[in-house]
Amino acid sequence: MKHSIENALWFKNSKVHYIDQRFLPSELEIVVTADWQVIAQAIRDLAIRGAPLIGIAAAYGVVLSAMHFRESFDLRKNVTDAIETLAGTRPTAVNLFYALDKMKSVLNEVSPDEDIVSALLEKAVSIHNADIDSCEAIAEHGLKLIPDNARVLTICNTGILATGGIGTALGIIYKANELGKIKEVYACETRPLMQGARLTYTELISKGIKTYLIADSMGSTAMQQNKVDVCIIGADRIAKNGDTANKIGSYQLAIAAQRHGIPFIVAAPQSTFDAKCEKNTDIPIEVRAHSEFTQYLNNSFKTEFNTWNPAFDVIPADLITFFVTESGVYHKPYKF
Amino acid sequence: MKHSIENALWFKNSKVHYIDQRFLPSELEIVVTADWQVIAQAIRDLAIRGAPLIGIAAAYGVVLSAMHFRESFDLRKNVTDAIETLAGTRPTAVNLFYALDKMKSVLNEVSPDEDIVSALLEKAVSIHNADIDSCEAIAEHGLKLIPDNARVLTICNTGILATGGIGTALGIIYKANELGKIKEVYACETRPLMQGARLTYTELISKGIKTYLIADSMGSTAMQQNKVDVCIIGADRIAKNGDTANKIGSYQLAIAAQRHGIPFIVAAPQSTFDAKCEKNTDIPIEVRAHSEFTQYLNNSFKTEFNTWNPAFDVIPADLITFFVTESGVYHKPYKF
Repeated sequence: MKHSIENALWFKNSKVHYIDQRFLPSELEIVVTADWQVIAQAIRDLAIRGAPLIGIAAAYGVVLSAMHFRESFDLRKNVTDAIETLAGTRPTAVNLFYALDKMKSVLNEVSPDEDIVSALLEKAVSIHNADIDSCEAIAEHGLKLIPDNARVLTICNTGILATGGIGTALGIIYKANELGKIKEVYACETRPLMQGARLTYTELISKGIKTYLIADSMGSTAMQQNKVDVCIIGADRIAKNGDTANKIGSYQLAIAAQRHGIPFIVAAPQSTFDAKCEKNTDIPIEVRAHSEFTQYLNNSFKTEFNTWNPAFDVIPADLITFFVTESGVYHKPYKF
Repeated sequence: MKHSIENALWFKNSKVHYIDQRFLPSELEIVVTADWQVIAQAIRDLAIRGAPLIGIAAAYGVVLSAMHFRESFDLRKNVTDAIETLAGTRPTAVNLFYALDKMKSVLNEVSPDEDIVSALLEKAVSIHNADIDSCEAIAEHGLKLIPDNARVLTICNTGILATGGIGTALGIIYKANELGKIKEVYACETRPLMQGARLTYTELISKGIKTYLIADSMGSTAMQQNKVDVCIIGADRIAKNGDTANKIGSYQLAIAAQRHGIPFIVAAPQSTFDAKCEKNTDIPIEVRAHSEFTQYLNNSFKTEFNTWNPAFDVIPADLITFFVTESGVYHKPYKF
């Protein structure tokens, strides 16, 4: 792909602009919308995806709803309903609820002489900017964990297309690459929706980083064959004990990394921690449609399969070597 | 798919008939050929695949070459060359070399008053029939390891399309299903060439077995969520110490099965054991072309990826709970 991607989503002229990520890497389709329901559907459909990015998108969605209902008698109620709808788009990534809770607080606490829309926009922009800063800080902290000449394995997409900034796990790789520390990256293609092949491979290649695309089944074999120095992934929700929900396939990589003594790093903003979840079983796991299995396949597959399609799995904290957030690096025993 | 598949390959009217498996499940294309070079190419291209089946196909390929060179002055030399070519088609599955060694012995030992073609055909048919019998015996022995109401996980294709008979790992599932012991099967889709989705899913559904297709990344998660009672896979080559080469993705399943205390069964004919390999590092692992990654993808992927594409991985023997061959069930410590 020749597109240079600088941002996955931005707010300009009272509209949200976002890349419809379903069409990458073959097409760079930018959607411009003032309709909060378009944002909700885009999150549902994974046109906008990545735990931090869906939080930001939802925050701007709340702003769009407030603009739409500005003249309405029931502004607060209508925006509250919009927040409910946005909260129902995806169940696992906690950043969504974190951002919406902040927006709801503004809605409830704004003084009568203040403009609600402006107050909401200010908060959405601050959530967005905080994520940009988080990404930078995560990258700076994570950098210290990357050995020279590193061969890194990752899964799904945790870069520019997943956040408001340079990314979480990929942000670390980018910063390390700027210092000449990255030899090569093994990117798991991430079935069924191929975020690794479509998004991560595209991002890494566009940064000039040597990248091997591998099937999700090949990560443990790459470790077995001594091709991997460190694994870095993102997170969709982290429980109080450190159990971490992330893209399906993360768990098996963590098991294999432990077997082979390879550091396994989770990189995520603090907003990914959910104080309401004590441990793994408290994290709801989204099971998605059969149709995702054939979405990127060719006509050899004319009918749908009966599938089991969990979008995430949960890595027990004991398999994770380090957490990296904007606050720093966490070592065992974990106290967040 | 509506096709009922009874056989993957058969010899009739002096020709080899085989299903070109690349077009399954959307098309049932049967190739009829008297050209041994077509057989060699079909093995290279995975039109004919499955460790036991490629041994059988290669044996018939030798017969076709002998028919072709029957009147030639250099019959033996030409057939020997054909054997060399057939041996060079795939490096990992040892059944290929096992079958070709048997054919070479016939070629070298046939008496001057005997017809070489007939002698070779007789041997090829005997290899084929032995595999049919092996499959039956493997299924009978393996049956004892399947609990009632079993939820089974498997990868790649080890059934009718991979053998001369009912299959190895799938053969056990079929026999167990006839006795009402199978609740459901989780079939890993098996990237990049989708043998699980295209072949195994098709076979299982045609037998009326409840099947969930899963991505290769989901096997460990299914185990974590207590959805799997037993894993059964085939093998492409087994070293003297029990280290087992099989389709890429098998290793990670074995690691996860050990972690979750789930029996991990390797089902294969005795011809899969290679007395020349002491252990894992003696087994050559085929690394295949980048193009396989996009072969079954749609037009969202217009250019090829830079990939690392090992077709197999090797499971250390300590991760394998049982081996099942036509001779019976092997328990630890393994003595074959």
